[in-house]
Amino acid sequence: MPIKSLSDLFLHTLQDIYFAENLLIKKIPVMASEASSAELKHLFEAHLKETKTHAARLQQVFKLIGEKAEGEECPAIEGIIEEAEELLDEVSDAKTKDAALIAAAQAVEHYEITRYGTLVSWAKQLGHDAAASLLRETLAEEKEADNKLLRLGEDKLNEKAA
Amino acid sequence: MPIKSLSDLFLHTLQDIYFAENLLIKKIPVMASEASSAELKHLFEAHLKETKTHAARLQQVFKLIGEKAEGEECPAIEGIIEEAEELLDEVSDAKTKDAALIAAAQAVEHYEITRYGTLVSWAKQLGHDAAASLLRETLAEEKEADNKLLRLGEDKLNEKAA
Repeated sequence: MPIKSLSDLFLHTLQDIYFAENLLIKKIPVMASEASSAELKHLFEAHLKETKTHAARLQQVFKLIGEKAEGEECPAIEGIIEEAEELLDEVSDAKTKDAALIAAAQAVEHYEITRYGTLVSWAKQLGHDAAASLLRETLAEEKEADNKLLRLGEDKLNEKAA
Repeated sequence: MPIKSLSDLFLHTLQDIYFAENLLIKKIPVMASEASSAELKHLFEAHLKETKTHAARLQQVFKLIGEKAEGEECPAIEGIIEEAEELLDEVSDAKTKDAALIAAAQAVEHYEITRYGTLVSWAKQLGHDAAASLLRETLAEEKEADNKLLRLGEDKLNEKAA
């Protein structure tokens, strides 16, 4: 599909992050099952619920702009997840695995933060105010999820692994 | 290579980001050549110089921890760049291409921000204070590069594309 305007680019990027959210709904339970720390497991489980909300919000955004909700394959999130899976396969120690899981989850969050940040900016410029507002809610939740992972990594787990 | 400790994980992640910085030294000039806006072209050129400094700083970090500077293939950065290249091939309009280039470059910056953030945290926990300090300098520059891209996207280019 040729992209000829900011409006086309906005739709393409929505499809990209919709694909990413749906992939994460499948992958987060695997990450939760690999975590040893109860706190980290709980973070993943709570974030899975949020991720389902984010996918539902994207469906609302598609509706608001009169488009069908569909995903478009997203090599970036696939690469981030492939890297996480390869790494986790190599880690033998449970505490070190928790530190690696936190780093992997933060990489996912940062990918989402950059995409939602861009989408909010484009939605505003395109006059899609209601869509911008929905996307901004998700952006705030992704930033908060990243902060929780950061704090857990700094306070608890890494010191045990070290 | 099995990863049995935070120290092994730190080294693995250094190798991952060293691979990423070296790939970016090859890819940023291509992004600069695709930009229409003189300001965006200038941003890419300035960031290329910074990226070379970041790679050199990583060599210092490897030296500080008594390891050889070498990269390890990083599927995450490869996926982020593959996605950018696929997208740019589909964009026909110059102003829209600039908006897409900004979004792609911000995705790269966010990947680096998350990796350097993790490395700073681990370096501190491992007692590698001089390494932490070098990594923190790069982290600050990646965040500033992301901010410059954000401001350029919000102020100038997207409105023209819209």
